[in-house]
Amino acid sequence: MSVLFHHLRVHQVFGANTDVGKTLLTAALARASSLTGKAVYYLKPVSTGPLQDADDEYIKRFAGPKASSIQSRCLFRYSDPVSPHLAAQREHGAEEAPVSSGSSCSAHILTASVPKLSIPSDGTLVNAIRSHIRDCARATRVHAHMYVETAGGVHSPTLSGSTQIDAYRPLFLPTILIGDHKLGGISATISSYESLLVRGYIVDAVMVFREEYYRNWEYLRSYFAERDINVAVVDPPPSKLENPARNLSSTDKYYRNIVPESQQGPVFDLLNHLDNRHATRIEELSTMPQRTLDHIWWPFVQHGLVREEKDVNVIDSASGDEFSIFNGHRVQTPADSTSSLLEPQFDGSASWWTQALGHAHPALTMAAARAAGRYGHVMFPQGSHLPALRLAERLVKSGPGKGWASRAFISDNGSTGMEVALKMALRAFSVREREHWSNKESTGEKPKNLGILGLKGSYHGDTIGAMDACEDSGVYTCEWHDAKGYWFDPPTIGIRNDKMVVSLPPAIAALTESGEVEINEGRIQEIYDAESRLDSNLADVYRTFIQDMLIKITSQGDLKLAALVLEPVVMGAGGMIFVDPLFQRVLVDSVRTSPCFSRTVRKEGSWSGLPVIFDEVFTGLYRLGMESTTEVLGVKPDISVNAKILTGGLVPLAVTLTNESIFAAFYGEDKAIALLHGHSYTAYPVGCEVANETLKIIEKMAQGDAWAQAKAAWQVGEDQPPRVWSFWDPAFIGALSKCEAVGEVMTMGTVLALKIAGDSQGYQSHSAQKLLEGLRVAAKDDDASFGINYRTLGNVAYFMLSLNTPADKVRHIEDRIWRTLRPAEV
Amino acid sequence: MSVLFHHLRVHQVFGANTDVGKTLLTAALARASSLTGKAVYYLKPVSTGPLQDADDEYIKRFAGPKASSIQSRCLFRYSDPVSPHLAAQREHGAEEAPVSSGSSCSAHILTASVPKLSIPSDGTLVNAIRSHIRDCARATRVHAHMYVETAGGVHSPTLSGSTQIDAYRPLFLPTILIGDHKLGGISATISSYESLLVRGYIVDAVMVFREEYYRNWEYLRSYFAERDINVAVVDPPPSKLENPARNLSSTDKYYRNIVPESQQGPVFDLLNHLDNRHATRIEELSTMPQRTLDHIWWPFVQHGLVREEKDVNVIDSASGDEFSIFNGHRVQTPADSTSSLLEPQFDGSASWWTQALGHAHPALTMAAARAAGRYGHVMFPQGSHLPALRLAERLVKSGPGKGWASRAFISDNGSTGMEVALKMALRAFSVREREHWSNKESTGEKPKNLGILGLKGSYHGDTIGAMDACEDSGVYTCEWHDAKGYWFDPPTIGIRNDKMVVSLPPAIAALTESGEVEINEGRIQEIYDAESRLDSNLADVYRTFIQDMLIKITSQGDLKLAALVLEPVVMGAGGMIFVDPLFQRVLVDSVRTSPCFSRTVRKEGSWSGLPVIFDEVFTGLYRLGMESTTEVLGVKPDISVNAKILTGGLVPLAVTLTNESIFAAFYGEDKAIALLHGHSYTAYPVGCEVANETLKIIEKMAQGDAWAQAKAAWQVGEDQPPRVWSFWDPAFIGALSKCEAVGEVMTMGTVLALKIAGDSQGYQSHSAQKLLEGLRVAAKDDDASFGINYRTLGNVAYFMLSLNTPADKVRHIEDRIWRTLRPAEV
Repeated sequence: MSVLFHHLRVHQVFGANTDVGKTLLTAALARASSLTGKAVYYLKPVSTGPLQDADDEYIKRFAGPKASSIQSRCLFRYSDPVSPHLAAQREHGAEEAPVSSGSSCSAHILTASVPKLSIPSDGTLVNAIRSHIRDCARATRVHAHMYVETAGGVHSPTLSGSTQIDAYRPLFLPTILIGDHKLGGISATISSYESLLVRGYIVDAVMVFREEYYRNWEYLRSYFAERDINVAVVDPPPSKLENPARNLSSTDKYYRNIVPESQQGPVFDLLNHLDNRHATRIEELSTMPQRTLDHIWWPFVQHGLVREEKDVNVIDSASGDEFSIFNGHRVQTPADSTSSLLEPQFDGSASWWTQALGHAHPALTMAAARAAGRYGHVMFPQGSHLPALRLAERLVKSGPGKGWASRAFISDNGSTGMEVALKMALRAFSVREREHWSNKESTGEKPKNLGILGLKGSYHGDTIGAMDACEDSGVYTCEWHDAKGYWFDPPTIGIRNDKMVVSLPPAIAALTESGEVEINEGRIQEIYDAESRLDSNLADVYRTFIQDMLIKITSQGDLKLAALVLEPVVMGAGGMIFVDPLFQRVLVDSVRTSPCFSRTVRKEGSWSGLPVIFDEVFTGLYRLGMESTTEVLGVKPDISVNAKILTGGLVPLAVTLTNESIFAAFYGEDKAIALLHGHSYTAYPVGCEVANETLKIIEKMAQGDAWAQAKAAWQVGEDQPPRVWSFWDPAFIGALSKCEAVGEVMTMGTVLALKIAGDSQGYQSHSAQKLLEGLRVAAKDDDASFGINYRTLGNVAYFMLSLNTPADKVRHIEDRIWRTLRPAEV
Repeated sequence: MSVLFHHLRVHQVFGANTDVGKTLLTAALARASSLTGKAVYYLKPVSTGPLQDADDEYIKRFAGPKASSIQSRCLFRYSDPVSPHLAAQREHGAEEAPVSSGSSCSAHILTASVPKLSIPSDGTLVNAIRSHIRDCARATRVHAHMYVETAGGVHSPTLSGSTQIDAYRPLFLPTILIGDHKLGGISATISSYESLLVRGYIVDAVMVFREEYYRNWEYLRSYFAERDINVAVVDPPPSKLENPARNLSSTDKYYRNIVPESQQGPVFDLLNHLDNRHATRIEELSTMPQRTLDHIWWPFVQHGLVREEKDVNVIDSASGDEFSIFNGHRVQTPADSTSSLLEPQFDGSASWWTQALGHAHPALTMAAARAAGRYGHVMFPQGSHLPALRLAERLVKSGPGKGWASRAFISDNGSTGMEVALKMALRAFSVREREHWSNKESTGEKPKNLGILGLKGSYHGDTIGAMDACEDSGVYTCEWHDAKGYWFDPPTIGIRNDKMVVSLPPAIAALTESGEVEINEGRIQEIYDAESRLDSNLADVYRTFIQDMLIKITSQGDLKLAALVLEPVVMGAGGMIFVDPLFQRVLVDSVRTSPCFSRTVRKEGSWSGLPVIFDEVFTGLYRLGMESTTEVLGVKPDISVNAKILTGGLVPLAVTLTNESIFAAFYGEDKAIALLHGHSYTAYPVGCEVANETLKIIEKMAQGDAWAQAKAAWQVGEDQPPRVWSFWDPAFIGALSKCEAVGEVMTMGTVLALKIAGDSQGYQSHSAQKLLEGLRVAAKDDDASFGINYRTLGNVAYFMLSLNTPADKVRHIEDRIWRTLRPAEV
C-alpha cells in the first residue's frame, strides 16, 4: 500500500501532543518548500472543528508567499472540535451526511467516498489518501513536496476508532514528529517517538519550539542526536492578538522571520535534510539489488539462476499480507516517471509458511518488546520464566499436546525441534531394547544402525540429523546426508475434474480387488474422517500391505527401525503431497501393535512398538484449518513438533512436545544420560512471549466466528465432524481442477496446491514457475491490484494465506489465478 | 535490584503527562488504603517546586481521614518548578547544596546520600528508593501499601538526565498509569503505556478522570480492556477556589465523595484489583518452581538431579547483568517474613555466553520492535531487506570477515551456522576432488567417508551434523552421533602459580629437547603473538608432529579429510580449554601447504589444501577482548561462524561468512547443486536489526575508551600488539592461580576459567560445582550483595561478563570468589 516517487517527496507530520504547533510548523515547512521553487501539496486527511479555524485554510493563508503554488486539501471534515472518532460518531450517530457538506472543502472529498450514514473505515481513509498522493504525483511534472498532517497526537483515534499510527501504517510514509515544548513535553515527545518506532515508521526529523524556560528542545536535541535523528528548533510564535488585522500582521512577520526569503535558518536546514533523506532512501533502494547479489548467500537459491538486479525482491516494508517492494528497475520509461517506486505484492507463500496474522501485527511487536524489556534473554537450564512456562503449559494442557503430552522442550526452529524429537525417540527405543537384552542377561546383541520408518516425500528440516530421517531423493542433500530408515510410497489425495480421488501406488493397487490406481472414496469430509474408514476394504488392504512390509524390513538387513516419523496429512516441502489419512492412521496403529516390535509393545500410557513422531511444524496450529492433525487421524503421537505459525511469523521458535514415557528414558542420576541438547537462546523470552500472544489471538479467532463464512462454504458446522474446510472457495477449487493445464488440485485450511498437468519431473521442474509467472506483477491499470509472490516446488505451485486474510483478498487472488490459467475465457 | 514483599504491596505511579491528576489520584488511593486499615507509605523520590505545593504535603493533607497512618516522604527536593534534571542542573550548577536544606523534608533525605555539588546518579536514586522500601517493609508488621509517585510523564528526565522509565527500571515495581483526560490525552496515555511495556514494566491499572466532553475515559476503557488492563474512571476534582478555606472544604468533600467511608466505588474496586494482582503475582512466583518441574524439559539438565522446588531458578525480570530471582522457598522463617521475595543474582555465565550489553538493553528492545513494526518476518530467498543486507555488509566489509570474506549466509543459531559451514566445506572439497578425477578422465574413485580434521575437546553445536564434526567423547552424544574425522590432542595454555605455562600432550613433549610436558614460553602477550613464534623450536616441533600425523591419517583407512574445523584460541564447551595459538597457527599453515592435499592446493584468493572453518560462535565479537581471533592467530579462515554475542543476548541468530572460492562450488545452472539449506525464519528482520544495533554499540565501545582501564591493567596500548587483555584484574588472576584448590587459571576478555586442582574427571565431575556453591547466595547482611549464578563444565568453573559490566561489580565478584576459595585468609 506504500507509495514513493522520485519527484514528489511526501512526509507525514505527527504531533507529540495536541497544541504543539503541528499546523504552524507544517505551514513553515510548506512555505520553505514553496520558496525553494517546489510545488507544494498539503493534505489534512481528517479535520475536526469550525471551518474558519481549519488547518487547510490556515496553510493557504500563511504558507505563502507563493500561495498559488500550494494546494491545500482535507478529505473528511467534521465540525465538532473533538477527537475524529468521536466527531464521526456524533455526526453519523445524528444521521447527518457522513461528510459535512457546505464547507469549502467538500469539493475535495473524493467521489469514491463512503456510503452515507456510515463511519469511513481505515481502508477507505487510507485508500483516499493514497489516491490523492497518486493524483498529485501524476499532476505535477516539477519537483514537489507533500505534507500529510495528522490530527492530535500519534495515537489519537481516527474515524473508525483505531489510532492513527495503526490506521496509516499501510501507507508507510516517512514521518516528521512535532515535539512538545511544554512542561512534561520531553516525555510526550519521546513516548510518541517510541510508538512510531514500534510500528516501524521512519522518523526523519523532530521539530520543536525553542521555549526557554523548560528548555525541552535542549534535552530533546541531545536525546535524538544519540539516535541519529535531526531536531529542528524553531522560535515560538508570538502571542495571539485580539485585533484580527494586527494578529495577521504579527503572524506574517513571524513567518517571514522563521522562513526568510534568504532561505537561511533551521527550517531550511531541515528542508535540505528531508530532501537528502528522500534521495538517500531512493538511492539505497536502487543499490540494494546489486549489493544483495554481491554479499548475500540466499537459502535454497541457485545463484547462477538469479543474477540480475530485477530478480531481487527488495522489500521496503510489509503490512497485513503484503510486501511493499521496490520496482525501480521497471519504472524507468519516461511515461512511467510519475509511477510509484513501491508497489504491493501479496505474500503468497506466507513467507515460507510462517505467517498467520499478517506482517508487523502490532500485538506481536508489543509482545516481543515487552519480553525484551523485562528479561532480554535469560539462560534456561534449571531456570524458569513466565513466557516459557506459560507457553509450555498452554501447549501441553490446552494446545496440540492436550490429552497426551506432559512436557515441552523448546528450541530454535523446526529443524532443531525435529533433531530433538529424533534424539528423544532413538534414545527411548534404545533404552527399552537394552532393557530387553539385560532382562535376558545377554549383552551380545545391541541395537545398531537405528533407522526411522516414514513416507517417501517427507522432509523434516535442513540440519543433517533431520535430513537423515528422510529418503535421499537426490534433491535436498549434502555430502554427509546418510538416509537412515525405510520410507513407504503412500497413497495420496487430490481433486481431479472436480472429483476427490485417492491415488494408490502400484504396489498397493495390486492388492485391491479392482487393481485401479485411482479410486473414489467419497466426499472430502468422508475421506478425512479416518476413524470411520477403519472398517473399509481399503483399510484392510493398507493393513496387509504395511504388515507384510514391516515383516520384510525387520527380518532382513542390518537396519533396525527405531521410530515412526510422519508429517501428518500433508508433506509440505516434498511437494504439498496430501497423504491419504487412512493410510497414516493404519500405519500408526500397525506400528504400535505389530509383532515385529513385540519387545517394545507396552501398555496404556506409554509408547508402544516404536515411538511415533508427528512433525507438525508446517501442518499444525490451524495452517490446515485445525489445531492439530491428530483431529483428522484420530490418534495421538508420542512426540510432536510445532514451529512456524507458533510465533505468528515474527521470530524463530520450536517446541517439541512429548509424553512422560519418553522423558523417563533420560531420567536418572547420571548427567551423561540426560538430553544433552540446548541452544544458547533456548526458550528466549521474546520468542516465547510472541508465541503466547500468537496462540491467544488464534484461539480467539478459532473460538469466535472469524472463519464462519469459509467454514460454511465447505458445509462445516460447529464442533462436529466432518471438520475439513478451506479459506479457498470450493466452487473455485472445483473449476480449477477442470483446467486443462492443471493435473490435480488440493486445498485445506490456508493452503491451495496445484499440480501442473503432464509433468512428472518433480522438484527439478520449472513448469509451475513458468505457467503462473504473470501473477507476479500487478494489473497495470488497476490501483487496487497487486503482484503475487508465490513459490513453487517443481511441478507444484502453492498459495498460502494467513489466518486472517480478508475474504475479498482471497477472492481477488482466486480471480487472478483463474485469469492466468484460463486467459481465453476471461 | 527488584524487591517484593508479602505484606507490603508497592506500586509505582506514572503519569501519561504532567497535570493529569497524578498526585490527586494517588492521594485517593492512599486514602482508600488507609480506610481499609492498611499502613500507607507514600514516596515521591524527586520533587521540584515550592514546598507549600509539595506533593508529599498534599498527600499528608488529603489522604486522611487517618492521616497519622500515612507516612509521606520525598528523597530529593529542588525548588525550581521545572523538570528534575534541569532543577538539579540549575541548583548544583549554582554551587548550592545538592539537596535543598531547610525544607521540612530534609530530615528524610537518606544519610548515605550524594556528595555535595554533584547531581545524584541513577544508581544513587534507585538505591535510595530501594533502601526506603526495605526500611518500610521492616518497620511495619501489618499489611501495608506503598505508592511511589514519579514526576511529570513516564519519560520525564530524572536528576542525572536519563528518563525515569529507564532510571527506575532496575527496581521493576508494578505500575499504575494515570491517563490523560484532556484533548490529545488518548494518544498521550497509549504512548506512555507503550513506553512502559517496551521496558517490560507490569502495568496493573490505568486511572483517568471522567471528563465528559472529550470522553477519553470511554475510549481508553475499551482500548485497555482488549489488553486485559483495568481502567478506573474517577470523577474529576472541583475547580480550585480563590478562598483557601473554601477550597480546602471543597477538596475535602471531593475526597469524601470519591473515597467514601462506605468503601464503595471505583477507587475501592481498583484497590481490590491491585491487592489481587499483588497476591496473584506472589502466588504465581510461588507455584512456578513446581509447574516448571512438571512441564518443562530443560536443555542439558539431568532432571533426576534437579527435583526440588528450590533447585529451580525462577527469574522474575533481569536488568544489567543481574537476574531478579524468586527466593520464596528460602524466605519462610518468621524472622524472614519482612525479607524481599526477590533478590539479585549476577548472571555469571552471561546466560550461556550470549550477553554482551546487559539484559533488557533499551536500544536492543527498540531495534527489535522497529524491525518487527516495519516488516514482521519477510521471506528471504531471492529477497532483500535493509536489516539483513546491512548486517551482511558490515560483517563482510568491516567486521570479522574483513579482508577475506565476501558473502554472508544467515541462519538461526550457532549450531545451524556450523551445519551450513560444514555443508559448504564438504561440497567445496568434493567439487575440487571431482574435478581432479574428471581431469584424469577417471570416475572410478569418488570421495567417500569425508571427515574433518580438528582438535580433541572441540564442540560445534547440538544438531547431529555439528556433533559429527567432533570426537565422540562419550559425553555429548546421541544414538545417531557418528564422529567423522580425526582430532589432535592440542597443547594448552594456563596460569599456574602466577606463571604462564604451555602444557604439551606427551606425544608432542616427546619430540622436544627437554621432553617436559610443561614449558614456559614467556609472558601472555608473547604467547599470544603466534606470528612472532613461528621461528621457535616449538613451532618446528609442532610442524613435524602435524605433518607426520597428516601423512599417517591420509595414507591409511577410508577416512578422507575434507575440512579443518577449529574453535580458535579457546574451546568453550569442551571445558574452556585455551589452546596454544601457535599450534593452531601451524596447523592451519600445514594443512594449506601439505603435500597430503596436493590435489587441492590452489593459488592466492582461493582455499587451499582443505577449507578452513573457524567456529567463532563463542570466541568472536570481543568475548575474548578482540573482534576476531584471527588477530591472534595471524591467519584468515575460508569460512567462519558468528552467533551468541552477535545479537547482544536478545534473540537467536547466526551468520556463516565465506570467501568467494567456497561460494563458487555451489554456483551453476542446476538447482540441485545450490546450497539447499534455509530455515523458515532465515534472516528474520528482528534478529538482523538487533545484530546491527549490537554491533553498532560494541563498535562505539571498542573505538572509545570504555575498556581503557582494563586494558591498562594488562599493559595493552592502543592498536599495537600484544593485544591480549582481560576485564579481570591481573593481580587477582595471579593470586587465584596460587590457591591450593585451584589447579590452573586462565583469562581473556570477559572470560575467567579455573580448573579445580587434582581432579581429572572432566565433564562428569562435580568438583567445581561443589567448591564454589557458596557464591550462589547473597551475603546475608549486605544490601548491596548479590548471588552469583555460575556454570561449571565438570572440573572447570567459569565466569563471564558482559562487555559493559561495571568495574566495581567485577571487583566485587573477584572478592567473592577469593573469599570462597580462601575463607581462612579473610
